[in-house]
Amino acid sequence: MSLIKQKTDQAVDILKELNIDMWLTYVRKTSEIHDPALYFLLEDPWLTWQSALIISRGGQKIAICGRYDAQNLEMSGIYDRVITYDESIKEPLLNVLNDLKPKQIAINYSLDNIAADGITHGMWIRLNKILEGTEYNERLISSENLLAALRGRKTHAEVERIKKAVEISEEGHRRVTETAKLGESEEDIEKMLLEFTENKGLIVSYPPLVHVGPTTNIGHGKASSDIKIKRGDLISVDYGVFYEGYASDLQRMNYILQDEEEIPPAEVRRAFEICFKAISAGAEKLKPGVLGWEVDYVARKVITDAGYEEFMHALGHQIGRNVHDGGCLLGPKWEKYGDSVMYQVEENQCFTLELHVYVPNHGYMSIEEDVIVTKNGCEFLSDRQMELTLIKL
Amino acid sequence: MSLIKQKTDQAVDILKELNIDMWLTYVRKTSEIHDPALYFLLEDPWLTWQSALIISRGGQKIAICGRYDAQNLEMSGIYDRVITYDESIKEPLLNVLNDLKPKQIAINYSLDNIAADGITHGMWIRLNKILEGTEYNERLISSENLLAALRGRKTHAEVERIKKAVEISEEGHRRVTETAKLGESEEDIEKMLLEFTENKGLIVSYPPLVHVGPTTNIGHGKASSDIKIKRGDLISVDYGVFYEGYASDLQRMNYILQDEEEIPPAEVRRAFEICFKAISAGAEKLKPGVLGWEVDYVARKVITDAGYEEFMHALGHQIGRNVHDGGCLLGPKWEKYGDSVMYQVEENQCFTLELHVYVPNHGYMSIEEDVIVTKNGCEFLSDRQMELTLIKL
Repeated sequence: MSLIKQKTDQAVDILKELNIDMWLTYVRKTSEIHDPALYFLLEDPWLTWQSALIISRGGQKIAICGRYDAQNLEMSGIYDRVITYDESIKEPLLNVLNDLKPKQIAINYSLDNIAADGITHGMWIRLNKILEGTEYNERLISSENLLAALRGRKTHAEVERIKKAVEISEEGHRRVTETAKLGESEEDIEKMLLEFTENKGLIVSYPPLVHVGPTTNIGHGKASSDIKIKRGDLISVDYGVFYEGYASDLQRMNYILQDEEEIPPAEVRRAFEICFKAISAGAEKLKPGVLGWEVDYVARKVITDAGYEEFMHALGHQIGRNVHDGGCLLGPKWEKYGDSVMYQVEENQCFTLELHVYVPNHGYMSIEEDVIVTKNGCEFLSDRQMELTLIKL
Repeated sequence: MSLIKQKTDQAVDILKELNIDMWLTYVRKTSEIHDPALYFLLEDPWLTWQSALIISRGGQKIAICGRYDAQNLEMSGIYDRVITYDESIKEPLLNVLNDLKPKQIAINYSLDNIAADGITHGMWIRLNKILEGTEYNERLISSENLLAALRGRKTHAEVERIKKAVEISEEGHRRVTETAKLGESEEDIEKMLLEFTENKGLIVSYPPLVHVGPTTNIGHGKASSDIKIKRGDLISVDYGVFYEGYASDLQRMNYILQDEEEIPPAEVRRAFEICFKAISAGAEKLKPGVLGWEVDYVARKVITDAGYEEFMHALGHQIGRNVHDGGCLLGPKWEKYGDSVMYQVEENQCFTLELHVYVPNHGYMSIEEDVIVTKNGCEFLSDRQMELTLIKL
């Protein structure tokens, strides 16, 4: 059974569970603006004219689209009915609504769940115009809970893809360790990873982030061609790929030993240990039913209790069809995260656990693992970094 | 000067012309949902947290973004000020508004201009919450006219890229003619074009559409592996590429001569002539000041006056950063096209002119050219197809 078939069947189950009669995805020109919900609704994401993809609690799957878009939808075998139009979607859409008479219609908009906020404001206005004078425009609700569940609860096939993406990231990280040499720049490492990815026939799930030594620019900045590996540097690399549409997101740490060193200095060792301990604390807390912010809290506390400056991002986000997969976020209760940190964690969600501290004179200590939530806890999808990787050059 | 610098400067000029004080692009996680306006605002499209990109009529260019996104924005040199935040964008955004006191704030939403409908409904609600209790939420207007002008009026650098994309499409089309053989399937031709594109290091601007003979499935459907070239077939190919982010969109026609034929049958020749004449009629009508639907009308009339069935799509759309570039559309006054066909044509807009008729027993006759609007008319960007290409196999 195709992944899309599985996910649309899963959507029907979630509609039943959440007591929602209908899920309506209303899109146009998907090459220009791509509603992330389409990842789970279409084999082929190209729709040109206004289209409605409808899944009902009763299990009906209906697509309404412009005439020339119909064939791909029909061939996909996902939809029981593919209804076409030439001039206006209004009539066929109202016909389907009058036929199914949904009491709730879930629409892809959300203040806090980015992955469930796919309808543009212009399309929202259009939809409301279509429904003007009917009882349906009072019945529109957000699909955020539906999409959080659908995206979050990974099927076996989805988990297998993520695992494969994680494996390839790990191979790339090993390559960084194996090929590191004095004088190699951040940009050199970035290029190596991009070539490594291309040679695999894959694309990165985000531009690799490479940070070498104490003078690096932290954050989502570009790798520098001027900052080069020297002894005593921490090398932090953040690298993930898409494998068959599913993302990994992984950070690994290397340390370049000084000439006379056998082990890193105490402050470097301590930084690794505290980061490791913080991720362990998060992983121990992570299980079904816990709230997103609670997981962040215990990991963040390890860092601040140890006297380090707080990391200014969430401990963990979901991974899946995108590297930031929306839904429940393991983050602090900051305004920008809104309700996303108030969601309950669910089984089969896949998260990152990531944090960093700064070590003066050496650089950033930054670790990120990928995990899956199990019935009673979580399991690492990545081969967890247990020790700082030491490189003698 | 970088293209983005040119386009943001052009935006300032258009704000003055349209009497709009401020253009505000409000986005988050651009890897998940990508506001098409970002093509003209960012060198590097990755923004993670809620960000505001502001251009004022006075020429100020201000970016507000999450801390870790700042570096790329600063390095791009586009923005005079890059303001960062950790927890909430609200305060820095209100500060900028209170500083500039705009009377109109153009936001990227539009009912009919797809390329100007980039803000999601969730982000629209968020923005209105941020502005609650200020005078600014009464001052939000659509940026559709601004974006129609900005996207439509191509700079010299943009036109050069489109020309290059057109050239490469033409080369691909010649390849179709040169390599055509009996028994070759639609899918074979599609694969050849995809390989041709990849070998150029480029990507297609849409999946190539290949239609062979009378039994093909018209529209945006997949090429068939069962439908194969035989004598007497029309071969219609729709193929475009992106060159440095700019699209071409071109259809060319081939005819496979019968064994004893020197020229195609009369009905095939007539179909080409009528299509050619219809495109000529459209091109003659196309000039600054004419309305979109008026251009469609004259071309459509040639087709229907000749007794052919009407083509159920618009005569022409703009090309540029996307293969359907939004703004003024050369289409009929159908509900689904909304106001887009009521726009006035402007100088330096680039359009397709495309239409088709069906020839029983032979297949689809479908031609598409790319043109640029000049001061007093239009010029073909493509080397116009003057005659049906005849292939003897």
